[in-house]
Amino acid sequence: MGLEHIEHNTQNQGKADQLIRLCFIKRKQETKGKLRVMEVIDVLRMNGGIGDTSYANNSLVQQKVILMTRPITEAAITDLYCSLFPKSISIADLGCSSGPNTFLAVSELIKTVEKKRKILGQKSPEYHVYLNDLPSNDFNTIFKSVPRFQENLKLQMESEFGPCVFAGVPGSFYQRLFPAKSLHFFHSSYSLQWLSQVPELEEVNKGNIYMACSSPPSVIKAYIDQFEKDFSTFLSCRAEELVTGGRMVLTILGRKSVDPCSKDGCYIWDLLALALKQMISEGLIEETKLDSFNIPQYTPSPAEVRSLVEMEGSFTVDRLEATEIHWNAHDSEYFEFDEFKDGGYNVAKCMRAVAEPLLVSHFGEGIIEEVFSRYKKILSDRMSKEKTQFINVIVSLAKRA
Amino acid sequence: MGLEHIEHNTQNQGKADQLIRLCFIKRKQETKGKLRVMEVIDVLRMNGGIGDTSYANNSLVQQKVILMTRPITEAAITDLYCSLFPKSISIADLGCSSGPNTFLAVSELIKTVEKKRKILGQKSPEYHVYLNDLPSNDFNTIFKSVPRFQENLKLQMESEFGPCVFAGVPGSFYQRLFPAKSLHFFHSSYSLQWLSQVPELEEVNKGNIYMACSSPPSVIKAYIDQFEKDFSTFLSCRAEELVTGGRMVLTILGRKSVDPCSKDGCYIWDLLALALKQMISEGLIEETKLDSFNIPQYTPSPAEVRSLVEMEGSFTVDRLEATEIHWNAHDSEYFEFDEFKDGGYNVAKCMRAVAEPLLVSHFGEGIIEEVFSRYKKILSDRMSKEKTQFINVIVSLAKRA
Repeated sequence: MGLEHIEHNTQNQGKADQLIRLCFIKRKQETKGKLRVMEVIDVLRMNGGIGDTSYANNSLVQQKVILMTRPITEAAITDLYCSLFPKSISIADLGCSSGPNTFLAVSELIKTVEKKRKILGQKSPEYHVYLNDLPSNDFNTIFKSVPRFQENLKLQMESEFGPCVFAGVPGSFYQRLFPAKSLHFFHSSYSLQWLSQVPELEEVNKGNIYMACSSPPSVIKAYIDQFEKDFSTFLSCRAEELVTGGRMVLTILGRKSVDPCSKDGCYIWDLLALALKQMISEGLIEETKLDSFNIPQYTPSPAEVRSLVEMEGSFTVDRLEATEIHWNAHDSEYFEFDEFKDGGYNVAKCMRAVAEPLLVSHFGEGIIEEVFSRYKKILSDRMSKEKTQFINVIVSLAKRA
Repeated sequence: MGLEHIEHNTQNQGKADQLIRLCFIKRKQETKGKLRVMEVIDVLRMNGGIGDTSYANNSLVQQKVILMTRPITEAAITDLYCSLFPKSISIADLGCSSGPNTFLAVSELIKTVEKKRKILGQKSPEYHVYLNDLPSNDFNTIFKSVPRFQENLKLQMESEFGPCVFAGVPGSFYQRLFPAKSLHFFHSSYSLQWLSQVPELEEVNKGNIYMACSSPPSVIKAYIDQFEKDFSTFLSCRAEELVTGGRMVLTILGRKSVDPCSKDGCYIWDLLALALKQMISEGLIEETKLDSFNIPQYTPSPAEVRSLVEMEGSFTVDRLEATEIHWNAHDSEYFEFDEFKDGGYNVAKCMRAVAEPLLVSHFGEGIIEEVFSRYKKILSDRMSKEKTQFINVIVSLAKRA
């Protein structure tokens, strides 16, 4: 009572505007390091939407990797279910991006639990699925698919099922994202190779856009340090958020070699650098522009992953593997169209879906078509002559009691 | 480990594609009723983005209503905090839409708790904020503001605070959205007047787009029945999701009169119908198009809200009030620009931000400019001659033990 006609109170209007201003005051000048973090949060995202260059339509490698790791994720979620029998299971996909892959990963996990609970004669648990990515990710495209996904899952489950509800969690997984002790299972595929920021380099990484054989040792050290810091932070945050006995399966784009700038971890970026350098030599890009561009990524080896997990101390390693996948996921008899058989075309499109926003933010929109046209040719040439593959480092972790 | 080179296994590729198909099989033919529900989920949304016709830029009435109800929300969250002292508080804004209003509502709640916990010498709890709306809502625009909002909140809090993390929850609040017993506080403002579907009408609601004096009694009954069903479902779902002692403050666009088609609940839509009918008389819209268009909204009275809460049984009513707010939120000395003083212009823009997607889905894009240009004139005329105001029904509820 007494609230009537408050709208005529100009003092209140003033307060309203003050509140809105307080909610959106201009960001204060940040320190150099912090500003960099913000920049990565703003510019690192996969291409949104469902168009020709979207991540949703150019992420077949990532889809295959999810299917390849299925035996490991199945074993982990079965262990979890059979040791806790939770009435409600909270699952998060970290770095979900905006295509159908996140639904594939989630549906595999849910189907595994449903199969097991039926065998054991248990009631279907409630499923709470959290899809996480940076705030600039295209969540709208995922969210529009949620109702159909829920319906189809229900149809496939035949008997009583769920409820199964979804939430999107916008934020960096190098920070806390969930309530303490609230999650049962974390899944992340092809995301943890992305760093929280471009490492702070003391020397210019001349002519490279990532760690390469020709990078100064200080650059390589900065990349390693950044990964160690980021991955340890990631583990600590997730340890706080997982229930005791909670599980985590992480697939990271990595390398097999001990050498951090070995070809198996860096080659795909070396070839993109080559395309950019061709354009410099033709005066289409300024050399200084390339010198100040570095990809915020690190492809770890299984040994590095194990050592960081042990050092952080919250988890035990249940399984740790390295597998390979050809750069061109379309490389099978299944695809009839010649277009799909052009490996360079497919891999360039996949890499464009992943790297375009990063490149645009640094070099501008204007160079994109030309860069990827050259990149495609370089990729086609190398793929016809060499064995070209990504290395997947897969680790299955259990939270210590 | 036997996973290597699985990508060359065509059988596996076949399985991959089958899985994706299963995730996205074409929606089966639904029953009439069910299809309608889906349609509302698909088409009901506020205008997205941050442009001239966006909800974000045309929701000052809704902002003022949040500020008007502040004493009630403050009392409710203080009660909650002081009775449970939770280490982690989960708050949801249901029907958050895509502007700054949801951040305003949430920041008010958090500031209230922080003030109280400082007085009592308690540690700052973890805050978990869930922003809910239908899957077609523009979540991308909200999510992009989250990092800045978090930073500013931290700056304002001065001492130790949080963490405060955000999630978006895409789905109808007429279904389960959260884990059982996981939420502490639900806030919803200007959302629960939206029904889950257009009521199933036995007679044509000739010449109207909502309940009106000239609507057949069966149409009015269908609207009442739909609201009763929807609101009861809403209460049951939230009761499952709230912890014992959890609280809920709902502000619903409503009416004061007992008569469901009284002017205070329907007038704004009557005038939109008038604009559409003008266009029919000039042959710009087909009459049958209007006959099949009905707004999925119901503006309840406080008595109806109380009776449904009591019937459902999960909640006790702490407070129940009806307040008024002028259609034109810019109606104050605060605004210097003449444009803002043109009430018709402001109200038409506000209503456009709310109703454009609904109108476009039924009448097509082509009529929009013309409809809102006429609506603006009609609104200006009526506002200069009559007292024009929205009625807010505000109810503060506590979950029974």
